[in-house]
Amino acid sequence: MANPSLLILAGDGIGPEVMAEVKRIIGWMGAKRGIHFDVSEDLVGGAAYDVHGVPLADATMAKAQAADAVLLGAVGGPKYDKLDFSVKPERGLLRLRKEMDLFSNLRPAQCFDALADFSSLKRDVVAGLDIVIVRELTSGVYFGEPRGIFKEGNERVGINTQRYTESEIARVAKSAFELARKRSNKVCSMEKANVMESGILWRDVVQEVHDRDYPDVELSHMYADNGAMQLVRWPKQFDVIVTDNLFGDVLSDCAAMLTGSLGMLPSASLGAPMANGRPKALYEPVHGSAPDIAGTGKANPIACILSFAMALRYSFDLGDEATRVEKAVEKVLADGLRTADLMGPDGGTPVSTTQMGDAVLAAL
Amino acid sequence: MANPSLLILAGDGIGPEVMAEVKRIIGWMGAKRGIHFDVSEDLVGGAAYDVHGVPLADATMAKAQAADAVLLGAVGGPKYDKLDFSVKPERGLLRLRKEMDLFSNLRPAQCFDALADFSSLKRDVVAGLDIVIVRELTSGVYFGEPRGIFKEGNERVGINTQRYTESEIARVAKSAFELARKRSNKVCSMEKANVMESGILWRDVVQEVHDRDYPDVELSHMYADNGAMQLVRWPKQFDVIVTDNLFGDVLSDCAAMLTGSLGMLPSASLGAPMANGRPKALYEPVHGSAPDIAGTGKANPIACILSFAMALRYSFDLGDEATRVEKAVEKVLADGLRTADLMGPDGGTPVSTTQMGDAVLAAL
Ligand SMILES: CC(C)[C@H](C(=O)O)[C@@H](O)C(=O)O
Ligand SMILES: CC(C)[C@H](C(=O)O)[C@@H](O)C(=O)O
Repeated sequence: MANPSLLILAGDGIGPEVMAEVKRIIGWMGAKRGIHFDVSEDLVGGAAYDVHGVPLADATMAKAQAADAVLLGAVGGPKYDKLDFSVKPERGLLRLRKEMDLFSNLRPAQCFDALADFSSLKRDVVAGLDIVIVRELTSGVYFGEPRGIFKEGNERVGINTQRYTESEIARVAKSAFELARKRSNKVCSMEKANVMESGILWRDVVQEVHDRDYPDVELSHMYADNGAMQLVRWPKQFDVIVTDNLFGDVLSDCAAMLTGSLGMLPSASLGAPMANGRPKALYEPVHGSAPDIAGTGKANPIACILSFAMALRYSFDLGDEATRVEKAVEKVLADGLRTADLMGPDGGTPVSTTQMGDAVLAAL
Repeated sequence: MANPSLLILAGDGIGPEVMAEVKRIIGWMGAKRGIHFDVSEDLVGGAAYDVHGVPLADATMAKAQAADAVLLGAVGGPKYDKLDFSVKPERGLLRLRKEMDLFSNLRPAQCFDALADFSSLKRDVVAGLDIVIVRELTSGVYFGEPRGIFKEGNERVGINTQRYTESEIARVAKSAFELARKRSNKVCSMEKANVMESGILWRDVVQEVHDRDYPDVELSHMYADNGAMQLVRWPKQFDVIVTDNLFGDVLSDCAAMLTGSLGMLPSASLGAPMANGRPKALYEPVHGSAPDIAGTGKANPIACILSFAMALRYSFDLGDEATRVEKAVEKVLADGLRTADLMGPDGGTPVSTTQMGDAVLAAL
């Protein structure tokens, strides 16, 4: 049987640097565990724009569709800030999400024991925190039509459309309930049903899916503004949070920051099962391309490494191998190894991107 | 000359209880400072629905339009959860905002010295925090058309429209720049210009207003998801934040929670100047109607009292009197008086809603 295929899109800024460490771990998996992947690489974001004039070439899109999993680094940078909206680096990422139909974006916000003092929140508020935000990723105001800037009389009007169909809500709700069953069996759904009709539909459909297929899962509903508050007040009240594309964008960044270690957080974006039973899937760190530190060896490769671990778990059913990688990361953190973003309250041993990669490999 | 008029809409839940304490302070202003108001009262929210079948009667709307300032308590409660969208308590509040055209909503997030340990954030992150979120309040996805739940083929679709005109953005930007000039002269504007065209227009117009009329104010732009992160990471980097209706809703609740004392935070919603030069204005606490503690004497009246102080400052040009009220509040906090929501790390003297009102009056 052919090896499963991995498409690597390292992207911009620190993307290629952190991805380099992941490639070494992929190599280790082959050499030491006999787990082989067919790895190919291509361009996305500004890097693709520089070569093709678009942030994602059609040929790359086709490769992504065919791959068993896509690993993405990060996109964007000041160099591309003045580009037209339609060719900005972000559009490459959004095209991947939309055309691969990756509707379920899992964003764990986990506080590593060794880093509990790094948060701006008090230790007892975040220590042991382990929640997942399931963000709808292919619809809502990110993709709704009409959209654009129009002339109306003698002034401009900016328009975007929040739009959710019943089936779009149902499928992401289902994925949140499935995830909850593997965790603490608790889902909180967030919207603004008090002011938005799309929020009313969201709430109703999530409740219907629950009542029909997941009555065993504890379900609650919360307005998104209160959700932001509660995340800051006492995040451990949550297990799985499910919300729409835009609220998910803001709330997951808020949740990520609670852990105090953005450079540590992975994400998985999953779609429907392919012919081989694997879901369409893209894995990427939650952090951005951090152009200010690109090329300085300061980037933390752990979020990208943990994204690969998520790929092992969700795409290749290699949960044990995923755990092995995660444990290795925990060990190097407990050993006090710290990339620049983690130089904080507890001193620790400063290491570069590559040295962190070395250490994770050694711990494996 | 006639006394300025105040319309009190106490609303639901703890609204009437906290407003009762404000009325005593209004009385004190007349008796001790010779500052008299013509006070009238009416119904809003569920209280109005119970009597009129709508959350805001037309006659009440007319009174609000004519008043020099409106003081609002809070709206909503579980009793009204099953009501049709169009008559929910919230619609009363939204109608006031829209028809009075209260486009600029000032939400200070201030950390009181005596309460710096109440936050879930570390003391040094929040101590001395004093920022204001200026939220656009009359447009965006809250009011944009088309909106509703429609049938499409055999499924339902929920639609809302994010819509901003140039002039809507310009006027709220202007109010943020004006406010910044009275503070630390620094504005950060937040949107999602990387994914929404309405965000691009927002960014462009804020920049244009700045370059034309407020070049002396320091202006920066930030994506709203990053804004949520930065608020949690290091909120003191901000002075004035300006953002749209929906982001403002979520981000201001996040900012409010940073201070750890939601029961303390006031807000002002301001519109264009009336014939007498005063702006159309509505003042209300940031907290909600807290139906779970209504009637128990546990409510904290301070947010509502400080909202009245904002009215003194912004509607009646009585900045000194406003400061007097604010200082009285600071004193009772420093003295250790604590309503139930403030019973926290430092012990303190437990007091009821009325006892807190007594203490503020005594401190005046
Ligand atoms: C880069 C940007 C388009 C993206 C988004 O808004 O979804 C990012 O913020 C994210 O959360 O993945
Ligand atoms: C009660 C509700 C309609 C309101 C809003 O969403 O604006 C509230 O959350 C607020 O922030 O004032």
